[in-house]
Amino acid sequence: MARTWATLGIDLHLEPAGPGVRRGLTDALREAVRTGRLTPGTRLPSSRSLAADLGIARNTVADAYADLVAEGWLTARQGSGTHVADRAPSAPPTGPARPPRARARPLHDLRPGAPDLASFPRAAWLKAARRALTAAPNDVLGYGDPRGRPELRAALAGYLARVRGVRADPGHILVCAGFPHALRILGEVLRGRGARTVAVESYGLDVHWDVLARAGLGTRPLPFDARGTVTEAAADADAVLLTPSHQFPMGVALPPDRRAAVTGRARRTGGLILEDDYDGEFRYDRQPVGALQGLDPDHVVYLGTASKSLAPGLRLAWMVLPPSLAEEAAAAKGPMETCGVLDQLTLAEFITSGAYDRHVRAARLRYRRRRDALLAALAAHAPGVRPTGIAAGLHAVLRLPPGTEATVVQAAAWQNLALYGLARFRHDHSTTTPLDALVVGYATPPDHAWPSALDALCRVLP
Amino acid sequence: MARTWATLGIDLHLEPAGPGVRRGLTDALREAVRTGRLTPGTRLPSSRSLAADLGIARNTVADAYADLVAEGWLTARQGSGTHVADRAPSAPPTGPARPPRARARPLHDLRPGAPDLASFPRAAWLKAARRALTAAPNDVLGYGDPRGRPELRAALAGYLARVRGVRADPGHILVCAGFPHALRILGEVLRGRGARTVAVESYGLDVHWDVLARAGLGTRPLPFDARGTVTEAAADADAVLLTPSHQFPMGVALPPDRRAAVTGRARRTGGLILEDDYDGEFRYDRQPVGALQGLDPDHVVYLGTASKSLAPGLRLAWMVLPPSLAEEAAAAKGPMETCGVLDQLTLAEFITSGAYDRHVRAARLRYRRRRDALLAALAAHAPGVRPTGIAAGLHAVLRLPPGTEATVVQAAAWQNLALYGLARFRHDHSTTTPLDALVVGYATPPDHAWPSALDALCRVLP
Repeated sequence: MARTWATLGIDLHLEPAGPGVRRGLTDALREAVRTGRLTPGTRLPSSRSLAADLGIARNTVADAYADLVAEGWLTARQGSGTHVADRAPSAPPTGPARPPRARARPLHDLRPGAPDLASFPRAAWLKAARRALTAAPNDVLGYGDPRGRPELRAALAGYLARVRGVRADPGHILVCAGFPHALRILGEVLRGRGARTVAVESYGLDVHWDVLARAGLGTRPLPFDARGTVTEAAADADAVLLTPSHQFPMGVALPPDRRAAVTGRARRTGGLILEDDYDGEFRYDRQPVGALQGLDPDHVVYLGTASKSLAPGLRLAWMVLPPSLAEEAAAAKGPMETCGVLDQLTLAEFITSGAYDRHVRAARLRYRRRRDALLAALAAHAPGVRPTGIAAGLHAVLRLPPGTEATVVQAAAWQNLALYGLARFRHDHSTTTPLDALVVGYATPPDHAWPSALDALCRVLP
Repeated sequence: MARTWATLGIDLHLEPAGPGVRRGLTDALREAVRTGRLTPGTRLPSSRSLAADLGIARNTVADAYADLVAEGWLTARQGSGTHVADRAPSAPPTGPARPPRARARPLHDLRPGAPDLASFPRAAWLKAARRALTAAPNDVLGYGDPRGRPELRAALAGYLARVRGVRADPGHILVCAGFPHALRILGEVLRGRGARTVAVESYGLDVHWDVLARAGLGTRPLPFDARGTVTEAAADADAVLLTPSHQFPMGVALPPDRRAAVTGRARRTGGLILEDDYDGEFRYDRQPVGALQGLDPDHVVYLGTASKSLAPGLRLAWMVLPPSLAEEAAAAKGPMETCGVLDQLTLAEFITSGAYDRHVRAARLRYRRRRDALLAALAAHAPGVRPTGIAAGLHAVLRLPPGTEATVVQAAAWQNLALYGLARFRHDHSTTTPLDALVVGYATPPDHAWPSALDALCRVLP
């Protein structure tokens, strides 16, 4: 559905509703700038008037503007509004070869979802790569097993059993190109079995909901209460996607009674639980919560990733499948779509040599110190802000006074601080009362930039 | 559709027809052995009687048997028939972790589709990886651009223009995890535009046809005549998938008049040509045929891969899209499914440093020598066999006396020589008169194994 943005006379091709609106708007605006339909210097309408124009929430527009400021497509100056940034026009359609322009980065970045990329263990990784490739027999370089390299699946089975309590047979592990790839495969399998709806958490990532939607599956948000996700409400869904060890983004662990209840119901009804264990390695104040999969390997698909423990750029994730699903999922993955073997072998070597454990331990210590610094700074400079979800992971949720979230996010954009409000993680159909909060990814900046990012954050907090 | 294999009382879940039969049978048999439904030592029915049982071509069964012998699941001894090989039973469903068993390799391997993996430039690749990772800024390790690393797209644009005459803007290049990944994306785009049918060549790869089928697209084979693929017959298809520079597997180049005609028609009708340029680097007796894409970048999608020039295990391929398709294809690829950045950066470094050109030159020389040795051996030992498609690439087509192909393939299996007959590459709905031939991948064996593979081949030729 195309909606005309009357003020500027350009078409924004937006879905009328659903989890994709926010991203759709951001993409449409970015594209309009990239292609020159919005020229540098153009002043954009206020978020209030554009929201009214498009019939969507003002928060959604404010978020989209903030993203594009952070990415360098727009500029925002207090008092003078939001403008299209100066930038070279895009290359002509079939013009001469030239490298695509890199996007400007925000000065400070506290968006969640990535670890500190500066601490990626480059030297250790290269050493492992050398050892792995030197030792590998030639046929490793062929098309290989679409489930992933046996060396990596064996290493993961041992590691996940030891660290996360996962019961994994290497034959039932699929190595994937990141979590969304794994989720797409599962979506296809579920759809092929006649599933229509996946219960999801009220707060989560719209890219995941979009992946399920593209597989033909609707998503239905589960309520979120003081004890976390109300899994009882998933009773009649075909499957449920959960972050039980550390709810993303709210940061709580699913209470033991709900863990038992959700697996018990899956056992009784033959339902499937998709366990997104995105940051299982990072626990500070208590023992890690073991994976739900350990309770019932026949009804839980365990999903893990290297995106938080190492780097998203590796595009390596894995799932441990119930035996009854393993062949179907491998078939849905297809015989040829797999990840590069060199990274797979390197990760296997990294795990079996102990380098992975060492790296995770060091990262855990570093992030714990950052979290402590965040808590201290909040206590000193923003006593009205209540931090939650802080026992684990790479981000914290900062609860704000009601009605202030959009303003704080906008103020952050003016300071060139990339920051996400909780609203962007809320499922559009959630019935849970919206909360005002920030989701602060304290692992994102490199060490040298962390203190100034924290200062910038404190400046915009009420 | 489940068909019971009466002789042994097991169900083979086979599609009744279409390009997947051969693979379906192979997979079903392999699975029956793996899961223990067919126990070691069991004698299999003759290919003739199983074919009659299942209502499929005898060649199909013979091919499946030959594959499984080559993979070590079955054994074949002249005079005593085909048996299930002795092997350890598979691991129990949720048993303790253990590495999956590697499959036995055939003694000699002349199957086409892969380069000599022993000549993968490991040292040069590791050196490029070190340089690339050392030089990369931190944000390279993040989620990044789903189209692929800008460094790689820029390097590819320059390389493809120089070597293949491709007109490529880096912004219209998508880096993919192998050719099938790229084809799936294109299939989704075509299906989304309402396409129903893709014209394909009479001879090709069933995995490609399957990828299109999974995207909801039928494939309709174009006739193959003395001058190659009859592209005129593609007139009313929504798109056409071609290997114009070096037909796979027949080995001929599309004649200039047909090249002009097929692009001319695409221009007039708005149709799309998918150009699979899988081995464009390997030409021996003449100048390389430039990519079709250079004739009409607005109607040709150019697809290239590192699988033949370097190694399939890298799972790196790329497509150069018409400007009108670039955004749609990037959207179909999804925002998160991409390839590991380290291999992408390494390949970019490999190309820009000149290491790629050096490697390809050395490989071309090596394969040319092998091709010459093959031709000499045929002239000396099998004068009744006519080699064709020998001017380029990594394989040759050896024309056999009518009616002998299945026997030769079976004889090869008995010698533990993995070899493919032309029948396995023929589209089931092709109207072209079947030819008896072998498709010999002379690049496949490592140098030390090549002479004995060639000897084994000569022994089974009529």
